[in-house]
Amino acid sequence: MRAPDNLQTCINFVLEADRLKNVNRQTYVTDGSRHENSAEHSWHLCLMAMLLVEYVPDGVSLPHVLEMLTVHDLVEIDAGDTFCYDEEAARDKAEREALAAARLFSLLPDEQAERFRALWSEFEARETPEARFANALDRLQPMLLNYRREGGAWREHGVTAEHVLRRNRVIADASPALWQFAKEMVMDSVSRGYLEPGSGYAEELARG
Amino acid sequence: MRAPDNLQTCINFVLEADRLKNVNRQTYVTDGSRHENSAEHSWHLCLMAMLLVEYVPDGVSLPHVLEMLTVHDLVEIDAGDTFCYDEEAARDKAEREALAAARLFSLLPDEQAERFRALWSEFEARETPEARFANALDRLQPMLLNYRREGGAWREHGVTAEHVLRRNRVIADASPALWQFAKEMVMDSVSRGYLEPGSGYAEELARG
Repeated sequence: MRAPDNLQTCINFVLEADRLKNVNRQTYVTDGSRHENSAEHSWHLCLMAMLLVEYVPDGVSLPHVLEMLTVHDLVEIDAGDTFCYDEEAARDKAEREALAAARLFSLLPDEQAERFRALWSEFEARETPEARFANALDRLQPMLLNYRREGGAWREHGVTAEHVLRRNRVIADASPALWQFAKEMVMDSVSRGYLEPGSGYAEELARG
Repeated sequence: MRAPDNLQTCINFVLEADRLKNVNRQTYVTDGSRHENSAEHSWHLCLMAMLLVEYVPDGVSLPHVLEMLTVHDLVEIDAGDTFCYDEEAARDKAEREALAAARLFSLLPDEQAERFRALWSEFEARETPEARFANALDRLQPMLLNYRREGGAWREHGVTAEHVLRRNRVIADASPALWQFAKEMVMDSVSRGYLEPGSGYAEELARG
């Protein structure tokens, strides 16, 4: 097959990226039939961004958020998904993902490599309003799925309401309204028995 | 749970939309382990849009394309995926999808319902440059997967090179470069035996 070099290089990357469909997360799809994968998760976050962008009080560039969400999990093709409550796996997550980024983005033509690397780094750094919103969605989405599955991956891994509040408080950095919603979901999960409170639950709640 | 009405309505839609992850397409993921679903397919198209937008000679609004691709398959939650070479199923596809759109988008707050319906209708009408590009990606992506699977769903369903060329010629409306690439992939598929040519193959090739 002949094609302009950059086009063939981009197409090769599209096929390499297909492997994200086989990276499984700890969360389950809503009918509980299987684990969710990181490719469909990324799509789900784009949909959420379109629907929830109005809950970011200072506003964000939605196009920039959509681009960031589309590429944010590509490094998992090499590094795998790290369950956000797994403190052991969290230790070398940054290192594993940096290696993955170096390999994967180098497969792209220079201009696109630079763009994808910048979007991924911005997501990880959580310093821009767009990155804070994208990260908030990345935290809220599994909460919704676990709540719908009556505890789902939380129960399976002994995660408590205290953990959930501590781990996902970054949602508040993007949107007080979404964090309020998330907190009420956690409180409801405790009262329904989907989540054990954990010893520091009251303290976490009191932090707002 | 209490939340501002629109927020809860949007969250409910996010959970309803999760069902797109269980709508299977005829194509296989690149390792052949299973069929691709429409949610991860939508993500894959967003990634392609970011990488291939430069091959649209007159330019398009990438943000608009990403929004369109994120919502374009939601109707399949009710209507299912229609294999693009299935002429029988194609007959009532528009009717099934219109019913699905009516039900699904009515679950959203008015403003978002209007926006999602407009994006979906624009995609289907293929009249704007953005819709033509989004449709081109929607056609090119399964061709890439079937080629990678040495015929994949084409072979399984007795699809010929003649069919593939006729059915996907709309790619040329968005991008001559992508259509040239697609045609060469079809020719290569014929020479490798992934595709039978079909009786009208030479004629289709001659159409350019």
